[in-house]
Order: sequence, then C-alpha cells, then structure tokens
Amino acid sequence: MAVKKLVLVRHGESTWNQENRFTGWTDVELSDKGRQEALEAGKLLKKEGFIFDFAYTSVLTRAIHTLWTILDELKQPWLPVEKSWKLNERHYGALQGLNKAETAAKYGDDQVKLWRRGFAVTPPALDKSDERYPGHDLRYKNLTEKELPVTESLALTIERVMPYWNDVIAPRVAKGERVIIAAHGNSLRALVKYLDNISDDDIIELNIPTGAPLVYEFDDNMKVLRHYYLGDADAIAAKAAAVANQGKSK
Amino acid sequence: MAVKKLVLVRHGESTWNQENRFTGWTDVELSDKGRQEALEAGKLLKKEGFIFDFAYTSVLTRAIHTLWTILDELKQPWLPVEKSWKLNERHYGALQGLNKAETAAKYGDDQVKLWRRGFAVTPPALDKSDERYPGHDLRYKNLTEKELPVTESLALTIERVMPYWNDVIAPRVAKGERVIIAAHGNSLRALVKYLDNISDDDIIELNIPTGAPLVYEFDDNMKVLRHYYLGDADAIAAKAAAVANQGKSK
Repeated sequence: MAVKKLVLVRHGESTWNQENRFTGWTDVELSDKGRQEALEAGKLLKKEGFIFDFAYTSVLTRAIHTLWTILDELKQPWLPVEKSWKLNERHYGALQGLNKAETAAKYGDDQVKLWRRGFAVTPPALDKSDERYPGHDLRYKNLTEKELPVTESLALTIERVMPYWNDVIAPRVAKGERVIIAAHGNSLRALVKYLDNISDDDIIELNIPTGAPLVYEFDDNMKVLRHYYLGDADAIAAKAAAVANQGKSK
Repeated sequence: MAVKKLVLVRHGESTWNQENRFTGWTDVELSDKGRQEALEAGKLLKKEGFIFDFAYTSVLTRAIHTLWTILDELKQPWLPVEKSWKLNERHYGALQGLNKAETAAKYGDDQVKLWRRGFAVTPPALDKSDERYPGHDLRYKNLTEKELPVTESLALTIERVMPYWNDVIAPRVAKGERVIIAAHGNSLRALVKYLDNISDDDIIELNIPTGAPLVYEFDDNMKVLRHYYLGDADAIAAKAAAVANQGKSK
C-alpha cells in the first residue's frame, strides 16, 4: 500500500495572541496576520499538490477559519469536516483572558512558566458559576459534567486528545484516507508527543509554529516513517521561537 | 413538545447567475452580490434570534459559502455540518456552461422553458467523456455510476433529494433539533413541493428567492403548521420574479 499521509496545521495568530492573553477555550477570532498565515498554509499545500479526503478541527473559530481558508485555497470547501471539542486548545482555567506579561509580572516568570509548561500542572480552576465555564456555552451542551473542564494541564489535554486520535482519526488514516487536522498548540502537542514518542519533559519545550503544515508519513502498520514541515525552515524556526517567548514578562 | 423549526436558504447570486449561464453542478463561486445576500440572510436570522443544532448543505461551493457566512454571522461556525451531493442543484446536462439568453435565441424560448420548467423533461445528456461529467470530479468519487447524473429533470432531482430528506434530515428535525439547509433553487423546490403538497405543474412556476430564509414550522407528527419568509415581502417578491425571467432571450 502507498505511504499514508497526515497533515497537522496549528491555527494562525489570533487577536488574543496579539494582545498576549491566555486564550484556551475562549472563542477569539484570527487576527489579520492569522488569516494571512492560514492563506499561506493553503498556498503551500496547494503548491505541493496536497489533496485531502477528510478534515478534523476543533469547535473553536480560529481553528475552523484556518481550515476553511486552507480548503478554499485547495478548491476543496466540499470536504467532509468533523469538528470536535476534543481537539480544542488546552483549557487555561481562571487564567483565560489575563495578559501573559501582566500575569508573569504578578506571579513571576517561574510560576507562569510552570503553568504554561509544567506537564501535569493545572492553572487555577474556574468556578462553575464563572461565565467562562464551558457548561454555559451552547456548543458544549452534549458534554457530561465530568467532560467539561474547569482547568487543564497538558497531561489532561492529552487524556482527551488521544482517545479521539486512536478511535476516530487514526483508523481513517490507516484506511489510506488523506487527513488534515487544523487545531491548537497543545492539542497538536498531544499528537506530536505520541507520534514522535517525546518525553513529558521534552514536549514542554517543543513549540509548534503557527500556519506551518506539518506532514507525517506512515507505513502500513501506522509506524511513523518521517515528518517534515512545508515551507522555509528559517521562517518556521523563527515562528516557534516567537511562541516560546510569549510567557515572559518583558 | 415545542414547535419544530426548519430553515431553508437558497444560495445568493453566483458568478454564472450574473452571466446568465446554466450552472447546474458546475462549481462556480458566489458573486459579490451573492456574498452580500448571504450576509443579509445571516443578519436576518440573527435579528430574529435563530440558533441551530445542525446544518446541511450541498457539495457545491456557492451553497457552502452561503452557509459559512450565515454561521459566522450567528457566531456558530462550530455547528456540525453535513455536506451531501443529494442537495446539489439539478444537473443541467450538456446545457451547463451555456448562456441562457443565447440558448433561448438558438432553440427558442419555448424549448428553453421546457428544459427549465418541464417537470420531467431532461436537457440533452452529457457524454461520459465530457470533462463536465461528474465522474471526473474527486468529490463524487464514492458515487456509483448509476448515481452520477448526465442530465436531470426536476422529477429526477426530486428522486434523489427526497430519500435524503426522509432518511437523514427529517428524523433530525423530528427529534427537535433546529436545522438549517443551504442549497439550490431546484433541490429546495423538491423539498417545498413535498412539504406544501404542490402539484407537478405548480412547482414549475414556483420561484424560491435567493438569500431569503424560508422558515417551516412542524407539529409533533411533522405536519407543517405554517411557513414564512424572513425579511421584506416586496423585496422577496421582486427577487422571485427576477429568477423567473432568467430564461428569456431578452
């Protein structure tokens, strides 16, 4: 059988990335730059001749719009798309909406780094009466109370992403369907950790750049053969470094 | 149980509507005016407080983009969407791509009216070697040869739309889910004919205006209680008349 392919794309910059705020499940829009990044991801995929059989994304607008832009560019807006909360960004609890630099100034760089990069560390939890609690949002009406997060570590994010990969996405890739996933920094980290067998400590330091299509190739047993980014290597490295610096107070 | 609601929206003007060409399954874009019509449909639905649980559309870009625009306006881009070829426009066979006025000048208004409005009349069929044959298009790769049309009458269009309504859409509406369908003049005619029990002759003369949300309300037995358009009645009547005149040679 032919090599099986999977493409991961992290959504472009959002308006809150721009303002350097903790976003998590807050449903903010792409910024103009983010829309441009999505367009460029689409152009790269088109240039390399990618076509897809199925797409997955989260239920957050910035990932959905990134996907729509890519599908338009590929002349595949008709592609079947499954949107799932399991591919959402990590839930940042009570930090959602706070400015990262201000939070760092208040709690210290080390505490913020721990919240952002501690593998099993959860930020302060949301109260269920808080308007930011996902139980108040129509799109999560079919989730059980146990499923609705009040805060998540990367470890907890992985706990919801991986069953979705194993039960839903991977079987489709294994059948030979060409799949694209448009998602978020931490839900994609979950996948990359698994696919590349990265340790808990190392995954914390791995920054997936926005809008750079990341291609995985698998053999017939779904063993990863290789992975590579599409696009200019220097630009990709610069993007990853920019993401890593967001949590610093200055 | 509460009244069940269904909203039908015919896509806005496409670039080929503008050029007055037979479109059918040709995958043309919305025109600027068409995008504006989609936006206005979204604004009307928003103003009237509509929210949805599920959306259906065809696999043609002009209907998908109309839906996406509406969902963005409603802040529901996360809504689950099923795209099906069964909701596609009627296939216009070998007329696809021809200018309606030129076709009328060549074959006569009466022949064109018959092709456009004869209930069981099929336009000249496409040859399967024709590049316009849907069997050459990736999005139809899972259809059987019997399913792939070479031309369709309104009667044949109804034959594929109705099983999709009965088996897929209606059960969802019956469960109380709020459903929106963004589709095409003839696939929506099929539904309206059934829902309002319109005769073969009368459905030919019924013109569904573009971008005007058409609301159906059902009782617990899926009996239609009433239907109505959102928006200004005069504007809707003018739009329907404009569609009816498209096939005339002058």
